[in-house]
Amino acid sequence: MAGHGAAPGGGHREARESREFLEHARKQAAEFLGVEDPERIVFTSGGTESVQSAIRGWGEGAGKGTLYVSEMEHPVVEAAVRRLEKEGFRMMRIPVDGEGRLQWTKVKAAEGPGLVCVHLAHHDLGIVQDLKQAAVFAKSVKAQLFVDASFGAGWVSLPEGLEGIDLLAISGHRLGGPKGSGILWIRSGFPWKAQVEGGRQENDQRAGTENLPSIAGLGASLAEWRKSGEKFRKTAGEAQRMLLEGIRKKVSNAKLHGPEPGPERNPAHLGMSFAGLEAEALALVLDRVGVAARGGSGCVTREMKIPPAMKAIGAKPEEARSLILFTLGVASPNLDVAAAANLISEGVRRLSLTLPAE
Amino acid sequence: MAGHGAAPGGGHREARESREFLEHARKQAAEFLGVEDPERIVFTSGGTESVQSAIRGWGEGAGKGTLYVSEMEHPVVEAAVRRLEKEGFRMMRIPVDGEGRLQWTKVKAAEGPGLVCVHLAHHDLGIVQDLKQAAVFAKSVKAQLFVDASFGAGWVSLPEGLEGIDLLAISGHRLGGPKGSGILWIRSGFPWKAQVEGGRQENDQRAGTENLPSIAGLGASLAEWRKSGEKFRKTAGEAQRMLLEGIRKKVSNAKLHGPEPGPERNPAHLGMSFAGLEAEALALVLDRVGVAARGGSGCVTREMKIPPAMKAIGAKPEEARSLILFTLGVASPNLDVAAAANLISEGVRRLSLTLPAE
Repeated sequence: MAGHGAAPGGGHREARESREFLEHARKQAAEFLGVEDPERIVFTSGGTESVQSAIRGWGEGAGKGTLYVSEMEHPVVEAAVRRLEKEGFRMMRIPVDGEGRLQWTKVKAAEGPGLVCVHLAHHDLGIVQDLKQAAVFAKSVKAQLFVDASFGAGWVSLPEGLEGIDLLAISGHRLGGPKGSGILWIRSGFPWKAQVEGGRQENDQRAGTENLPSIAGLGASLAEWRKSGEKFRKTAGEAQRMLLEGIRKKVSNAKLHGPEPGPERNPAHLGMSFAGLEAEALALVLDRVGVAARGGSGCVTREMKIPPAMKAIGAKPEEARSLILFTLGVASPNLDVAAAANLISEGVRRLSLTLPAE
Repeated sequence: MAGHGAAPGGGHREARESREFLEHARKQAAEFLGVEDPERIVFTSGGTESVQSAIRGWGEGAGKGTLYVSEMEHPVVEAAVRRLEKEGFRMMRIPVDGEGRLQWTKVKAAEGPGLVCVHLAHHDLGIVQDLKQAAVFAKSVKAQLFVDASFGAGWVSLPEGLEGIDLLAISGHRLGGPKGSGILWIRSGFPWKAQVEGGRQENDQRAGTENLPSIAGLGASLAEWRKSGEKFRKTAGEAQRMLLEGIRKKVSNAKLHGPEPGPERNPAHLGMSFAGLEAEALALVLDRVGVAARGGSGCVTREMKIPPAMKAIGAKPEEARSLILFTLGVASPNLDVAAAANLISEGVRRLSLTLPAE
């Protein structure tokens, strides 16, 4: 932050030094993604901007067309597709099964330009989507494929060379990078318009002085993931199984939503309901006993009383109202995880005691 | 960055700690701006986003109307108003005089909603606009007033309590804050729509996990400006006069554009032309001799062959092509400034020697 104060756009020595830092981070990002066109990598202010620019930029490029999207996407995706819908784009909803798998065979195809929007891993259900199926579908309807990897990147492998994907969004802080860092990758070969305008930065794909400290931090995180990703995934996955087992053993009304741990689940994520309890209250009690967890959906807007994903998979209302999200880190020692299961059980017991007897 | 890893949105202790940091910075920003509604302060990813969200958000709120704007605004402002123009908004251009003063008496008023767009200080000319006049004009045409303070904030006083202003954009790194930090302030009382959507952060005014390190850094910078702004302005202003005098004494074809140093000029900025030389080449030579300066406009897009401001003020083509921007810092010691004038003279001499004799 202090050592490279110049904006990378200038011609003088200080600016060139900043530019070297910027391009080093871009190379690290290209290596992480496995793509050969680093100039198509845009550093953004985070996952939200990446998603928004991906979808709106496609919309502005296409002018009209069809959006293929489930009803359980992240609110950022939902906000962007609804904006395009208001502008005249057609919306085709992709149904999901009871664990959140996208049901490609049940989607109708439309004529004209199209954008298929899928998540890599779901923010509430933890399910990992089958991107090969998504790519096959997108190809069959001659649409571009946008993958929101805000949740799951790093924890879940991306296709080699991002095969079949046309637009990809990444949130930096979910990979251990700084908050306020993100990536948008745009394959060449279809119209896409920059959404942050008024400057030539990022190869004319995003205006504004580059956030060098954030970008350098994100680059370093991605390099670390490339080196140690396998270990991170293994550590988190083991902790995930242990935590799930511990909770199931101790808390009778605990229920996992989304797939069981394994290739279909983000190894860093457990979304569990505790029917009969309210998520917000339980999260508060868990905080008291020493477990930092999120009550309710990971990301909600005012209109959402219950997580849309819980509705989409047909969860019971008492399950939807009691969803708690546990996130595992790259270094969750087994001891902590075993303790966490005990604390969660204790939290559930304490909150249950406050409820009137049935 | 390392100490407060949790996103400020959550309910657990770690999130509450992050939230305290966030709200502390917001209070620092409110004190710097002199406003009593910190909840109307939105932390953004920088000046570009702030400007864009201000203008587009006003446009989305108004639905239709008139934009009052000069032809020498920053490309970010220009991009945003042109986007609204494409959507059907009317454009009324504010003429400028030979030093860049906005000529309010020469602007025609239109019916219906309106937005007056002005800069606090100009990025190429260094001129400080009269915001009182701008506010009087905006009131007379029943329009909102947007002030782009991306250049000038800190260096130039803002009206007390932001009187007369409805929307204000600030770029953090130009106040010594981190790159990738910025502020958008929105007065209540007129329709404005958030432009980054899909989350409830920043009082529903900007979605996306808050960039805590950037925001905390910006808050600290603003607190420093509040404490030492007077000293910063004095130091820079003295250095500015000394540099200008030195260049004028040593370089015969040097010409200042915009007003002379004084209340009408940003004390941290000198925009000078060196007729007969090309700006980019001169900037490169200056870099060689040890002066980091910008050749050409501070912010250009591909279409701009010459800085629009130089055209707007009626500068000669050879002046427009040879514009160099010198920026003074909060700690430019007099010794360095005297040396800089010598180095600039040396740079001009060297480049002139490479030119064919007339």
